[in-house]
Amino acid sequence: MINAAASAVFGAEGPFQRTVIERRELQPRDVLIEIKYAGICHSDIHTARGEWGPIEYPLVPGHEIAGIVARVGSEVSKYAAGDRVGVGCMVDSCGECAHCRQGEEQYCLNGMTGTYGAIDRYGQYTQGGYSTHIVVTEDFVVRIPDGLELDVAAPLLCAGITTYSPLRHWGAAPGKKVAVIGLGGLGHMAVKLAHAMGAEVTVLSQTLKKREDGLKLGADHYYATSDPETFKKLAGSFDLIVNTVSAKLDMGAYLSLLALDGTLVNVGAPPEPLSVNVFSLIGHRRSFAGSMIGGIRETQEMLDFCAEHGIAPEIELISADRIDEAWERVLASDVRYRFVIDIATMANG
Amino acid sequence: MINAAASAVFGAEGPFQRTVIERRELQPRDVLIEIKYAGICHSDIHTARGEWGPIEYPLVPGHEIAGIVARVGSEVSKYAAGDRVGVGCMVDSCGECAHCRQGEEQYCLNGMTGTYGAIDRYGQYTQGGYSTHIVVTEDFVVRIPDGLELDVAAPLLCAGITTYSPLRHWGAAPGKKVAVIGLGGLGHMAVKLAHAMGAEVTVLSQTLKKREDGLKLGADHYYATSDPETFKKLAGSFDLIVNTVSAKLDMGAYLSLLALDGTLVNVGAPPEPLSVNVFSLIGHRRSFAGSMIGGIRETQEMLDFCAEHGIAPEIELISADRIDEAWERVLASDVRYRFVIDIATMANG
Repeated sequence: MINAAASAVFGAEGPFQRTVIERRELQPRDVLIEIKYAGICHSDIHTARGEWGPIEYPLVPGHEIAGIVARVGSEVSKYAAGDRVGVGCMVDSCGECAHCRQGEEQYCLNGMTGTYGAIDRYGQYTQGGYSTHIVVTEDFVVRIPDGLELDVAAPLLCAGITTYSPLRHWGAAPGKKVAVIGLGGLGHMAVKLAHAMGAEVTVLSQTLKKREDGLKLGADHYYATSDPETFKKLAGSFDLIVNTVSAKLDMGAYLSLLALDGTLVNVGAPPEPLSVNVFSLIGHRRSFAGSMIGGIRETQEMLDFCAEHGIAPEIELISADRIDEAWERVLASDVRYRFVIDIATMANG
Repeated sequence: MINAAASAVFGAEGPFQRTVIERRELQPRDVLIEIKYAGICHSDIHTARGEWGPIEYPLVPGHEIAGIVARVGSEVSKYAAGDRVGVGCMVDSCGECAHCRQGEEQYCLNGMTGTYGAIDRYGQYTQGGYSTHIVVTEDFVVRIPDGLELDVAAPLLCAGITTYSPLRHWGAAPGKKVAVIGLGGLGHMAVKLAHAMGAEVTVLSQTLKKREDGLKLGADHYYATSDPETFKKLAGSFDLIVNTVSAKLDMGAYLSLLALDGTLVNVGAPPEPLSVNVFSLIGHRRSFAGSMIGGIRETQEMLDFCAEHGIAPEIELISADRIDEAWERVLASDVRYRFVIDIATMANG
């Protein structure tokens, strides 16, 4: 076993405590990664607090992981010690089902293995990236291109791919009008990515508070959804709306903003079902859809795209002793736009 | 003005009464059609009873119209007296908006003109096909191919195109698995059309009562949705589900039957919103969509497809004095599968 320092919660109420966890000895195709940075995702909080189902404690969250390869198993062919690599929301899948064979491991028919809070193929409970080291099979490790700093690369592994994948799938491109609901961790990446793909980008946010930011990130337009005029003015406008907000919004109002054949894709989800007026779908052959992260191949493609286009998330780097505080600020939407834990402060702590 | 015999309701409660209505004198591009057959659509009932919004009376329903051209206006180029023609759910649209220019007149941004119960560009209240004659601009008239009898052609103008269009749009074809919810007027056409397009077709009906029919119509499989085993067995199976049922179904259960990237398209709509669990969309990148009839060009394509593949609805021909009774039977789902009024019985009545 390999010991790793980690920050864990020991119950739904928290708080974080330093601990030492065990990572498995390297199997032939495993990669040992020395984690340098770990992003804080809203879903870390949902999961750790048991809001998405019962969970075992202690739990080490974190699925936005960037680091350096420390050591590789005997059959690893893609990576070597010293390589700059990342790990996202999955650390394994069956590899054999139709979806895995298509490179859509996130939709594995036998269930992909989450980076934390899941049981892996060795029967062990997975622990995430708020930790100094992690062991992952090479198929679920991606390469971080030279053009990307490791600290900003970390959030791309979830916030980046979660927005990149639906933008690609539903064809964000020049001539297309894309709206992004919510300018948080996911939303600000959606704006940057859609803009880089050449789409005309509109932010739909509750207020105009972050308007200046939004335009700087690449949005062409910015509207407040608290203003009913917004919905009149933008009716039937968008080819694609990416909803990054997990709260229970008035879907009918947002669907009415879609053009003919437009799609509103949810990348987050409120625990309770949403109410959808079918007439608003039928009226313009609209779709109400969902999308979950992206496959490993597409995650690599996204990282390469970001390096090529000079795209990186806006981050606030914190030390490991400030995770509790950061979580409270995430819940209060008080972050522009992603907290990243400097894992060096954990190793040395 | 041109007088036409018609069957109209004079209030939400009915019953039908014989009356004479006026059709406009032929404008240069108008076609006067001697109606031979008119199908009875469930939406005739919803509309006439004011369930989809307030309506003016007397109202002559009917938007599944087949007949013979009697006379044409001075500038009509596509049709001549004696031609076999049809009219569906629309009799006009602006012709100038982006959607009309794309041939998607049903989604006209200025609002298409419904065949009955709408105000047309002349300021007149439109009256439908339960009548001996109708006057329609040639752009909204389609040709009924020789291979199709007029009586069975009538229901194709709504039930046919309403199911053909989404099947085409979402790619029903060999290698695709298509399910049809409900085996009524729309459902039985969806089965025939999807089968002719080469898809593997499954009917999802409340009971197995119409199983033998369904298989005869072209379904490969037939399941009862009252049996919970159905949902276990078919989980993640279908590329496309066409929902022809306007009742409030448990959408979560049906969405779970979609495969990766599958779409559940609603061609009918309950008046109240449906509850959709967003997790069920996100889990397999599924879409929940809607579709409304089809454009004029596609309606012609559908008629030609039906003639080519020998497809026609199953109908029960009735005389004009039995419309009230037929409506009651439609509401009781007691029709296999479409009532068609023999308009000769009205002309002579």
